[in-house]
Amino acid sequence: MSDQLTHFDEEGKAIMVEVGDKTPTQRLAIARGEVRMQESTLGRILDGDFSKGDVLAVARLAGIMAAKKTPELIPLCHPLLLTSIAIDFFPHPGEGRVEIEARVRVTGNTGVEMEALTAVSGAALTIYDMCKAVDKGMEIHAIRLMEKHGGKSGTYLRNA
Amino acid sequence: MSDQLTHFDEEGKAIMVEVGDKTPTQRLAIARGEVRMQESTLGRILDGDFSKGDVLAVARLAGIMAAKKTPELIPLCHPLLLTSIAIDFFPHPGEGRVEIEARVRVTGNTGVEMEALTAVSGAALTIYDMCKAVDKGMEIHAIRLMEKHGGKSGTYLRNA
Amino acid sequence: MSDQLTHFDEEGKAIMVEVGDKTPTQRLAIARGEVRMQESTLGRILDGDFSKGDVLAVARLAGIMAAKKTPELIPLCHPLLLTSIAIDFFPHPGEGRVEIEARVRVTGNTGVEMEALTAVSGAALTIYDMCKAVDKGMEIHAIRLMEKHGGKSGTYLRNA
Amino acid sequence: MSDQLTHFDEEGKAIMVEVGDKTPTQRLAIARGEVRMQESTLGRILDGDFSKGDVLAVARLAGIMAAKKTPELIPLCHPLLLTSIAIDFFPHPGEGRVEIEARVRVTGNTGVEMEALTAVSGAALTIYDMCKAVDKGMEIHAIRLMEKHGGKSGTYLRNA
Amino acid sequence: MSDQLTHFDEEGKAIMVEVGDKTPTQRLAIARGEVRMQESTLGRILDGDFSKGDVLAVARLAGIMAAKKTPELIPLCHPLLLTSIAIDFFPHPGEGRVEIEARVRVTGNTGVEMEALTAVSGAALTIYDMCKAVDKGMEIHAIRLMEKHGGKSGTYLRNA
Amino acid sequence: MSDQLTHFDEEGKAIMVEVGDKTPTQRLAIARGEVRMQESTLGRILDGDFSKGDVLAVARLAGIMAAKKTPELIPLCHPLLLTSIAIDFFPHPGEGRVEIEARVRVTGNTGVEMEALTAVSGAALTIYDMCKAVDKGMEIHAIRLMEKHGGKSGTYLRNA
Repeated sequence: MSDQLTHFDEEGKAIMVEVGDKTPTQRLAIARGEVRMQESTLGRILDGDFSKGDVLAVARLAGIMAAKKTPELIPLCHPLLLTSIAIDFFPHPGEGRVEIEARVRVTGNTGVEMEALTAVSGAALTIYDMCKAVDKGMEIHAIRLMEKHGGKSGTYLRNA
Repeated sequence: MSDQLTHFDEEGKAIMVEVGDKTPTQRLAIARGEVRMQESTLGRILDGDFSKGDVLAVARLAGIMAAKKTPELIPLCHPLLLTSIAIDFFPHPGEGRVEIEARVRVTGNTGVEMEALTAVSGAALTIYDMCKAVDKGMEIHAIRLMEKHGGKSGTYLRNA
Repeated sequence: MSDQLTHFDEEGKAIMVEVGDKTPTQRLAIARGEVRMQESTLGRILDGDFSKGDVLAVARLAGIMAAKKTPELIPLCHPLLLTSIAIDFFPHPGEGRVEIEARVRVTGNTGVEMEALTAVSGAALTIYDMCKAVDKGMEIHAIRLMEKHGGKSGTYLRNA
Repeated sequence: MSDQLTHFDEEGKAIMVEVGDKTPTQRLAIARGEVRMQESTLGRILDGDFSKGDVLAVARLAGIMAAKKTPELIPLCHPLLLTSIAIDFFPHPGEGRVEIEARVRVTGNTGVEMEALTAVSGAALTIYDMCKAVDKGMEIHAIRLMEKHGGKSGTYLRNA
Repeated sequence: MSDQLTHFDEEGKAIMVEVGDKTPTQRLAIARGEVRMQESTLGRILDGDFSKGDVLAVARLAGIMAAKKTPELIPLCHPLLLTSIAIDFFPHPGEGRVEIEARVRVTGNTGVEMEALTAVSGAALTIYDMCKAVDKGMEIHAIRLMEKHGGKSGTYLRNA
Repeated sequence: MSDQLTHFDEEGKAIMVEVGDKTPTQRLAIARGEVRMQESTLGRILDGDFSKGDVLAVARLAGIMAAKKTPELIPLCHPLLLTSIAIDFFPHPGEGRVEIEARVRVTGNTGVEMEALTAVSGAALTIYDMCKAVDKGMEIHAIRLMEKHGGKSGTYLRNA
């Protein structure tokens, strides 16, 4: 791993670093996070009574669209032509939490870690928004990179 | 607190709910979160050697700009004329974490909880982005609403 | 009704016209449109087999988010603080078409006709996108203003 | 033609489908639509008295800029590096309608049908906006794909 | 005039300053700038041969749309509901330059100087873009605030 | 140099011209501009008393983010995957001015002159915004292309 913060030049000025000399490769990043909530809130989300509306379906779209907005949100991120974005939810009834996983792919010169993390964040914030009328105490936790593949630095796998 | 998920109508369809009959009031929301990292990463961020660049200054701007993008990111959020956004960082040397606090104000018909939470998320993601070359294992935690004031539902204070 | 194209000044130059001297009033606009498709495509959308995914739920969110983007899309539209956006679908099995209705409200100086029409367009385009793998021949028709209320020009009701 | 709605995975969850394994090819999509209006409204648009301002020139730019916004508007669309966008208008005096045609090209992994349809929609909505002070009854019709070329599924030509 | 840089708090941290306690007033800002070019380039722009296309009409729309994007571009700008935007061009044949003037109005808590300056910049950059194939040496000069009215600090008039 | 304004077709209609048949090459554009201000304003910006906040650091980020927004701001600009953006400031104490230089790179089918010029403009406007409370008379000058490399038209160097 580099020992440099690559978003600054040698004088400490913020830059969007040159990636034009990197070879485009297929890249994948997987990020995870979770929303913790009251058990009753999770019950409502999962309720068979789906006429109440599908919180997770809205959050999924929000996460996908957030991933596409990453270079607008993160000042020094490069624009990328994302080739796929998928978001999964893993509710844990009895534990009052929903895990979120985002998988983002690109064929390009730089990785998609930030896009995957941004997708998770966008989905998590949307779950909060959809449920805040009944549970203002919800918390977003453990947004983190699980895996990345491709690129010069190669594969990263988070220790379990 | 309401017992309804207000972003769905009675048939379960997602809507941006009517707020036009609410009285505009001065509103404030305060949200917090934190980025956990290796102690050495925090050391670099805080390093007197600020010629290395100011990670937190970039993250602060990213958080402010993210707050302004909230209605683009959260599908059912209302557009609002935010009147102030401030972001503070509380580094905890020795604990490998930086706390982030966002305070957002508006005079309007609906609250700014989501704007404050989005500001914290944007700042946290940017810290990750700025430091990921040296510490891919960083995690974002405990994004949560601390206080809100104003509006019909009045004051909310998180229990300590 | 005015006899002027109000988006041009007296010399024919495009302007975003002054509305600052208008009194803010509660305004509502209702627009409609429809997507025509093969009967089998509509069947899939409506299919009890909803594990196939909810086309209309995605289109509803797209329409809501499109309404918020109206001043970015329509060059001379004023920014507005929309207070509500709701979208309904009326499928017509046997006729191979889905009607779309958008209702948009604001308390402001100018009307929300364009926001309602843009919401319908965004929802219709998204239905096309979701189904184009099976039916490239779909057509979008009859996007039109049904009603508007509020503002100096008052109520408009389309003749049946 | 596929028999699947490709924007959902096998469990019915919305995804932005992987296109990274497709070969980039030159692609073209041509879409059309029309705005129907009072004959007098069309007369004003076409009037030699062009000091009244050029409605179609504004609509053309709006359509071009809308095409570039497609992945922000259509939730599951991929970002693309459009290589050209052209919009033509075909007024039909005596019939009270203006036809709109958009041609969009890309060298990429996925097609530009949605970009062409979005360009037509953006131009049509802008014509409505520019003329609504004199003709609120205008209608947008027949937004449809005329041709597409390139990509694995090859050429599509609408039947006349 | 204040002796403080108001976009920093007392510790030097960037903030979007609170304006919620200011009284909304009608405000106007007028900004100017100019594009200097070869006389032949200006000739083409002004040419009776308008079949060559209307550079200034495109630039006018770009300026209007840029003004609406100001809070996305200028990190610490407040969002505002602009009530009018108008852009005028004053070509100076024989001097190889086009002056640009933008007038922006709002009823709000903070001024529209940045919106007017951004409108001028957007129009100037677009003139450059439209003509760069024939004149890469064009320069943008003298973007400046001419007047502002309204708000606590009252009227500002640039010395001639 | 071409003798055509390439953003219009042969009939004078604005188009985003086809670049799909151009070969992707590595391209670089360098643009410059300057902000003129009172000597005391420049003193504050440069002041050792940096607890007053870092105007140029904010302006740098604004310029980088503005470059990424170029195709949204300039109507006929192509979207591009910028591979690097760097902004430098050259303050001239005693002359009351700060020079701004932006360097933008891409591997693509079309040049990045507009991105570099837009980066300079965004940084300059932000300097104005940050300092306008103490110096409304600031002016932005001499935004111009210094160099471009790559592409069919090859190298351009401004005469000194």
